[in-house]
Amino acid sequence: MTGAAPASPLPRVVILGGGFGGMHAARALRRAPVSVTLIDRTNHHLFQPLLYQVATAALSPSDITVPIRWVLRGVHNATVLLGEARAIDLAARTVTLDDGRHAVPYDYLVVATGARHAYFGHDEWEGHAPGLKTLDDALEIRRRFLLSFELAERCETDAGRAAHQSFVVVGAGPTGVELAGMLPELARHAFHRDFRRTDTRRTRVILVEGGPRILPGFVPSLAARAHRDLEELGVEIRTNAVVTRVDGEGVSIGAERIASRTVFWAAGNRASSLTRQLGVPLDKSGRAIVNPDLSIPGHPEVFVVGDAAAATSEGRPVPGVAQGAMQGGVHAARNVLRTLRGEPRRPFRYWNKGELATIGRNRAIGDLGFMRIAGTPAWVFWIFLHIMYLVGFRNRLVVFMQWAWAYFTYQRGSRLITGRERGEEEARLRHTGEHTIERG
Amino acid sequence: MTGAAPASPLPRVVILGGGFGGMHAARALRRAPVSVTLIDRTNHHLFQPLLYQVATAALSPSDITVPIRWVLRGVHNATVLLGEARAIDLAARTVTLDDGRHAVPYDYLVVATGARHAYFGHDEWEGHAPGLKTLDDALEIRRRFLLSFELAERCETDAGRAAHQSFVVVGAGPTGVELAGMLPELARHAFHRDFRRTDTRRTRVILVEGGPRILPGFVPSLAARAHRDLEELGVEIRTNAVVTRVDGEGVSIGAERIASRTVFWAAGNRASSLTRQLGVPLDKSGRAIVNPDLSIPGHPEVFVVGDAAAATSEGRPVPGVAQGAMQGGVHAARNVLRTLRGEPRRPFRYWNKGELATIGRNRAIGDLGFMRIAGTPAWVFWIFLHIMYLVGFRNRLVVFMQWAWAYFTYQRGSRLITGRERGEEEARLRHTGEHTIERG
Repeated sequence: MTGAAPASPLPRVVILGGGFGGMHAARALRRAPVSVTLIDRTNHHLFQPLLYQVATAALSPSDITVPIRWVLRGVHNATVLLGEARAIDLAARTVTLDDGRHAVPYDYLVVATGARHAYFGHDEWEGHAPGLKTLDDALEIRRRFLLSFELAERCETDAGRAAHQSFVVVGAGPTGVELAGMLPELARHAFHRDFRRTDTRRTRVILVEGGPRILPGFVPSLAARAHRDLEELGVEIRTNAVVTRVDGEGVSIGAERIASRTVFWAAGNRASSLTRQLGVPLDKSGRAIVNPDLSIPGHPEVFVVGDAAAATSEGRPVPGVAQGAMQGGVHAARNVLRTLRGEPRRPFRYWNKGELATIGRNRAIGDLGFMRIAGTPAWVFWIFLHIMYLVGFRNRLVVFMQWAWAYFTYQRGSRLITGRERGEEEARLRHTGEHTIERG
Repeated sequence: MTGAAPASPLPRVVILGGGFGGMHAARALRRAPVSVTLIDRTNHHLFQPLLYQVATAALSPSDITVPIRWVLRGVHNATVLLGEARAIDLAARTVTLDDGRHAVPYDYLVVATGARHAYFGHDEWEGHAPGLKTLDDALEIRRRFLLSFELAERCETDAGRAAHQSFVVVGAGPTGVELAGMLPELARHAFHRDFRRTDTRRTRVILVEGGPRILPGFVPSLAARAHRDLEELGVEIRTNAVVTRVDGEGVSIGAERIASRTVFWAAGNRASSLTRQLGVPLDKSGRAIVNPDLSIPGHPEVFVVGDAAAATSEGRPVPGVAQGAMQGGVHAARNVLRTLRGEPRRPFRYWNKGELATIGRNRAIGDLGFMRIAGTPAWVFWIFLHIMYLVGFRNRLVVFMQWAWAYFTYQRGSRLITGRERGEEEARLRHTGEHTIERG
């Protein structure tokens, strides 16, 4: 079986991954004289910048996802296949899918498979400290966060309750800051009246950062503002704090020990393992080091974009953010078309439209290049921008409504404890008798 | 540890189950001189009548669920515990939770643990034909339904595609009819433009009923109207068709064989296994046969309500519907209070407010006692009623918006393939190389 129509005389472009990079590449090939096959292991495109909102029960999974085929329904030269790419054969120019039978041939390949979080060589920490990259991750974090209050309510001692009410977030990049900033508000306002034995206002949130300051990607003045905002929200911040151990009872920072049953990981990325099959140099995060045109050395027909690539723009590294992936996907697609037309390829130029991070209710920071904003204006701008970019009219409207509802009522729309426990956590929770029935 | 405050001098009412029966019992005890503990194995109350809408990707799980503690936040004498009741000790008057340590004492017990679907002694069919009682079930049905089109799109032969596009629904009560009625519209309208190799209009939906007609709970004229409506939607109906075998390849009805990879079960109920511990006679569905006041013989302090009980009202059996559970929960609570006040208990009187079943877009039937309705008026009434009863202001608004959106665009809000496969299905899907990554 072939990915595109087998008898097609059109050049076959295969795109791996339906994230920002892959989707923008596919859309940029609309009406082009190529046959496109997009392969993803899920049926949905995920709006990753809002994933932490699912993790904190503000939004539902379906609010930040759209079916990939629905987005591409008007791209008539594109076929969508559900499947996971297991192997790339650069010589034969085929991609083998997870059932081992499908070898999808390509003339051009765009690898946009993204990244997972990394534990700096301590993969055993993953069971205790889930990261936040996929919908699955978000639901796991939501489950643990909500469940910890249920466990506290069943607890017989104040000490036990305190351990269940201490949350550690490791890593103070935008994801860690967003997560840490949401938790105190939730605990203090949304949950306060719902528990009888547990004082949810006693909840502790500790944000741990290995570097000297939070939000290292931002200018110091904005990061300092975010630091102050987080402290006002009640988040305890530990900088220059390198985590040396994570287990079911807490986190160690050198000799210091923070007792916590619930740890979240937002401290590092590693590119999808598929990049290792490209036979090209990788950087220390496993990203393929690409040429200026985003192709890989020795294979001008293979492009890598987004978080799977270590790309540069005018000598500077392209940051691993949604904008970079979107622009990279479009650029790779256009270089394919240039080659087909016999034109020279162009080097990738990353256009930084600005950086935003939200901290909590009415609190955000933004660096738009020509100006810096903070506080309520930045927060309103953040909401506007994220609603704008959300794919699909329905999702925009629903998300906006949910936010408005959450803002005025302090309540949460998706307080569902779902899914069974994952990894090592399983044993602990089963031991203490906690396991939930529903998933969703 | 005790369920209610240990030193409380107030009588302790323990309610098992946060469905319609349990929640109504708890709310009826608001401000009463009792201490209430409600125990559920999930943290959410589920609006079960709309579960088939989650199963067919119209609504998100969070649209039809609310946290139990959120609903009861104003019932200050009620404590909510997440946990599963494993054993009831009628002599000691305690309920043991799933961790084996918690023995929650009660003075009055209300068992409202509902029912699961039953396979008439063929539990091995469950892996091939999931039922629809919990959120987990709904997500499993949604996953299988959406996945079957993805599998069809990956198929190399028309015959393979046809098997993936044939759906069998077993049982033509309201749930089976609602499910069967939704599928053709989804396949033909919502999915049509999204697939390149699969003609989703060729989808077959077969509704199998063991009895002589569909919707046996309704008067024949309304059932006949529903029968006609379903056929107009393209559903093939087989009555007097007793299923003799279900496997991964299809369904057998005596000698006849229907090839189908996706079978849904809506054909029978069995009460929660907790009723077996009550030591009282059960009916053939495992429901506890209760006294007229809803208590069990020999234990006036123990009540059973909703789908776990075989109750009668003025000599007629109370149907296993939401109304029956709600009214039963309130009645049991009031009988507890009557006993505490030294008043005689009253027998349960079921008030049938009417029966409604929806069949599809603009199609429904309703029997309100004083009048019968069908078609668009019944459908609009159905929408109105279900929005009215949905717990929580936010949910009402969101659900209404999603329905309006779905109605005018023919699209679906929650086309998420989530969760890993369940039961025996796992082997088959893994064998064919299909497994999905996200759950949600």
